[in-house]
Amino acid sequence: MSENYTYTTRVYYEDTDAGGIVYYANYLKFIERARTEMIYKQLELTHQKLKDQYDVIFVVRICNIKYHKSAKFEDILTVNTNITKKSLVRISMLQEVRKKNELIVGAEVELAIINSKGEVKKIPEELLKKI
Amino acid sequence: MSENYTYTTRVYYEDTDAGGIVYYANYLKFIERARTEMIYKQLELTHQKLKDQYDVIFVVRICNIKYHKSAKFEDILTVNTNITKKSLVRISMLQEVRKKNELIVGAEVELAIINSKGEVKKIPEELLKKI
Amino acid sequence: MSENYTYTTRVYYEDTDAGGIVYYANYLKFIERARTEMIYKQLELTHQKLKDQYDVIFVVRICNIKYHKSAKFEDILTVNTNITKKSLVRISMLQEVRKKNELIVGAEVELAIINSKGEVKKIPEELLKKI
Amino acid sequence: MSENYTYTTRVYYEDTDAGGIVYYANYLKFIERARTEMIYKQLELTHQKLKDQYDVIFVVRICNIKYHKSAKFEDILTVNTNITKKSLVRISMLQEVRKKNELIVGAEVELAIINSKGEVKKIPEELLKKI
Repeated sequence: MSENYTYTTRVYYEDTDAGGIVYYANYLKFIERARTEMIYKQLELTHQKLKDQYDVIFVVRICNIKYHKSAKFEDILTVNTNITKKSLVRISMLQEVRKKNELIVGAEVELAIINSKGEVKKIPEELLKKI
Repeated sequence: MSENYTYTTRVYYEDTDAGGIVYYANYLKFIERARTEMIYKQLELTHQKLKDQYDVIFVVRICNIKYHKSAKFEDILTVNTNITKKSLVRISMLQEVRKKNELIVGAEVELAIINSKGEVKKIPEELLKKI
Repeated sequence: MSENYTYTTRVYYEDTDAGGIVYYANYLKFIERARTEMIYKQLELTHQKLKDQYDVIFVVRICNIKYHKSAKFEDILTVNTNITKKSLVRISMLQEVRKKNELIVGAEVELAIINSKGEVKKIPEELLKKI
Repeated sequence: MSENYTYTTRVYYEDTDAGGIVYYANYLKFIERARTEMIYKQLELTHQKLKDQYDVIFVVRICNIKYHKSAKFEDILTVNTNITKKSLVRISMLQEVRKKNELIVGAEVELAIINSKGEVKKIPEELLKKI
């Protein structure tokens, strides 16, 4: 995850609202798909395997979003993700949604690591290194 | 549930799409809320208690939907639910979404009863009677 | 569209519900993305261009869905779409969602063609031929 | 809107994810419904009338969310909304989602006022007073 990671998606009907633009909550879906695909690529693990093998679950603690422009129906959007800080119990990242070079949405996201009981959990060093 | 049951909701931004109308998948959310509220009222039980006390889970097997008219942003919609057939393992119902007296969407829904292992399960007679 | 068309997607957190499976309404999102991608490929047109150049809008009139099995978080699903009937004002198709070879959901979908005023509209022959 | 405004909702299947809790993006739906109901009550206007009569559209510019606890399937949640700052072009508010007295999610939201061309717009004084 230390490298810049890019995920691309199209804006379908389901993503839009009566204003003709992407509904503001749906950007959180886009950036979550980007985080999930990044985990698959960097850790070579699914969420399910992270939980089964390491008892590691990522949860969002903070999500600070700024809406710069609107994306429209049928636009192609890319999500760029950059890790900005990491420790054994917290990972911070900047996620930016762009339409071509135009910044649409910027999000500062902080993830916490918990176990399946919902308790704070330290991520194994071997995993943290790959991030 | 044998009686006609009515649930009312408003159309919020989240329910609409770029066409300015309710996105076609979202009617399935409305009719599911109506079924859930009906269960609360008829059975005086939540889904969680149905599962914990009776190991009973309702799942949708068939959903045949006809879209007659479009509902728009900020419309007030009512969902009418009528049980049309019931047995120990299947419950069928007709659910109609209306804007005032205008029929917007009609759905024939068939629910199956399963247990937490995903196996076919007979609903207890005492519960079926209340439906 | 006369040819079989395939669209692939992953099941993300947003698609699932507390039962650990894909929420029943969300299959309608998957099959709609499949239809949209098919339009892009067969007609070489976006929905926006269809509307602007031809005043053609596709709307769902009927959607008969049968839920055979459940798909789970992180599954990879494919949507197969086959046109079963077409005329100048109606297009019918069978859409099947599979996990590998396992049939998860089958949907019979009927689309109507309308113009931007919401009136019945005949699709131009040149477009119908490509479908 | 200057007064504290409360909106109540239940957590339905559609709101949850495979973790058994409310999906993080869906809180943005809850707080948006709360803002919409507040507008109806304070301004005695719908979004549609605001647009038609005043050419006023509210758009979210900033949404800073902190996730304190998880809400679960079938929980009853209340959204409290307090205006924290207002001017002719910007309205800031604090929105808190609670389960009984327990704080689940806190959101600082900044709305901008635009017209139907997407330009910055001053809200009429008569409306601002009611907020």
